[in-house]
Amino acid sequence: MILTVTPNPAVDLTYRVAALEPGETHRVAAPAVRAGGKGLNVARVVAQTGGAAFVLTTAGGPSGLRLADDLEASGLPSELIPVAAPTRSSVAIVDETAGTATILNETGAGLSPAEWTALREAAERLAVPATAVVGSGSLPPGAPETFYAELVALARRRGIPSVIDASGLPLLAAAEAGADALKPNRRELAETVGSDDPVAGARILLTAGAGLVLVSLGADGMLAVTGDGVWSARLPAPLAGNATGAGDAAVAAIATALAAGVADPAALVRRATAWSAAAVVAPLAGELDPAYEGYEARLVTTS
Amino acid sequence: MILTVTPNPAVDLTYRVAALEPGETHRVAAPAVRAGGKGLNVARVVAQTGGAAFVLTTAGGPSGLRLADDLEASGLPSELIPVAAPTRSSVAIVDETAGTATILNETGAGLSPAEWTALREAAERLAVPATAVVGSGSLPPGAPETFYAELVALARRRGIPSVIDASGLPLLAAAEAGADALKPNRRELAETVGSDDPVAGARILLTAGAGLVLVSLGADGMLAVTGDGVWSARLPAPLAGNATGAGDAAVAAIATALAAGVADPAALVRRATAWSAAAVVAPLAGELDPAYEGYEARLVTTS
Repeated sequence: MILTVTPNPAVDLTYRVAALEPGETHRVAAPAVRAGGKGLNVARVVAQTGGAAFVLTTAGGPSGLRLADDLEASGLPSELIPVAAPTRSSVAIVDETAGTATILNETGAGLSPAEWTALREAAERLAVPATAVVGSGSLPPGAPETFYAELVALARRRGIPSVIDASGLPLLAAAEAGADALKPNRRELAETVGSDDPVAGARILLTAGAGLVLVSLGADGMLAVTGDGVWSARLPAPLAGNATGAGDAAVAAIATALAAGVADPAALVRRATAWSAAAVVAPLAGELDPAYEGYEARLVTTS
Repeated sequence: MILTVTPNPAVDLTYRVAALEPGETHRVAAPAVRAGGKGLNVARVVAQTGGAAFVLTTAGGPSGLRLADDLEASGLPSELIPVAAPTRSSVAIVDETAGTATILNETGAGLSPAEWTALREAAERLAVPATAVVGSGSLPPGAPETFYAELVALARRRGIPSVIDASGLPLLAAAEAGADALKPNRRELAETVGSDDPVAGARILLTAGAGLVLVSLGADGMLAVTGDGVWSARLPAPLAGNATGAGDAAVAAIATALAAGVADPAALVRRATAWSAAAVVAPLAGELDPAYEGYEARLVTTS
């Protein structure tokens, strides 16, 4: 199974209003509640595409109970490390007239040293039956910047691939630890390495130690960069839809491919781009258009 | 003690952003969490002004736990009827540049017949030591429109005064049941009786059976209307501040005065207006400016 590790999950709350009017009071129905966080979306996509996924994350406070409830309802196997701080929320307000979403993304609260230890020990134990390890999303405030690098080292000890979706120092440390694949988007990569050129930026991470860097370019598709070259894939025209979760679908694609022994960068970038596009078309983050298998044939690719 | 009954409480969540930008993503700190609902604010004001208050309300789901936690921290004595539906939330997004609050007010979920029975039985039991009964705020969807009228009847059986802050059919039914005091604002009164004239509207409620109608007019102060006349009070100039909870402060003033045997409408409208103004100046709903006792001397009154 693919083990996803999410140290900073969120409860995603989605409110719908006819029109968002700043400064005014809006009567609203109860929000849609969904266990969120990038690793949870990765696990949902792995499960939808017929793979086995396991969610390792944290839960605290009353919002942690909501996370646990929704995760249980999803049927995804999971282990939640109990933490003292309440699980953060992410509030989305969908304006049904404008078709836009206004988002309040809580930073989250830090974990205690004992809670980090419990998360590490659970990752060690759950890596034993795993076929790949995924570390996704922001780290909570005060986190060790090497947390994802530790996951990479754990995967290497077990002889299984690792995929990290992060930015900044945690991404750089994961590269130095020898991550098999990194998936920053263009902006995260530029912030991490200080270069606006995605190929040059990816090569900095490869030099640091990463095996493959997949850079998501939004409507322009994706680049896969290795020591051997650069491969790209995109759809012939941009898709309308919900880009939240598109990167998580790409991570799910890479992790399942690497776990199955697929190493060809051209195949990896195609699958990642296809699943990512299928995620844009699906209404919720962590879901693909059920016709996702048809997207690969439509791609424009270069190598 | 003053018994406040709140069938549709809320967890008030307040986020702060530098500037609210519709359609954009905002990184935010965890929200301030406060047990809300009009009756809870009334009880807080009663307690702040040296009176004894008791909160009877409901709590359900993870959000109900947050409500219970904050209520316990407040030190207010309370009884929470456990209900299946999660307690609703009210989300406020404070724009620190514009100085405005954008509010999402959840409608709330209905109670089962057994939950209504439990709430009624608790009210019967808690009315025994009470010196007044207050029913405040919206009723949850599907509620019996006579719920506040039943509270009025209960207070009459116990020989103690009742104060109801509601609108629409629940307000009209409370008048017909002989409520000692009703406190709609101008808009709620107009919606209930179909007249834009607050004195004429108040007289419809008096004819229906109410003893006194206190109409809050925002910056124009308040009117008290009885079968004997009309009394008004206002500050010489409007106050800047947070009007949320100003009406609850007025209800607290009326309930404590009636419980103490004060029946003079001129005294009642003065105290209600003074406390209401002191609530506008205080930062949080359910609190008064600590100098609230000085506000009465500044009022402009008519009779």
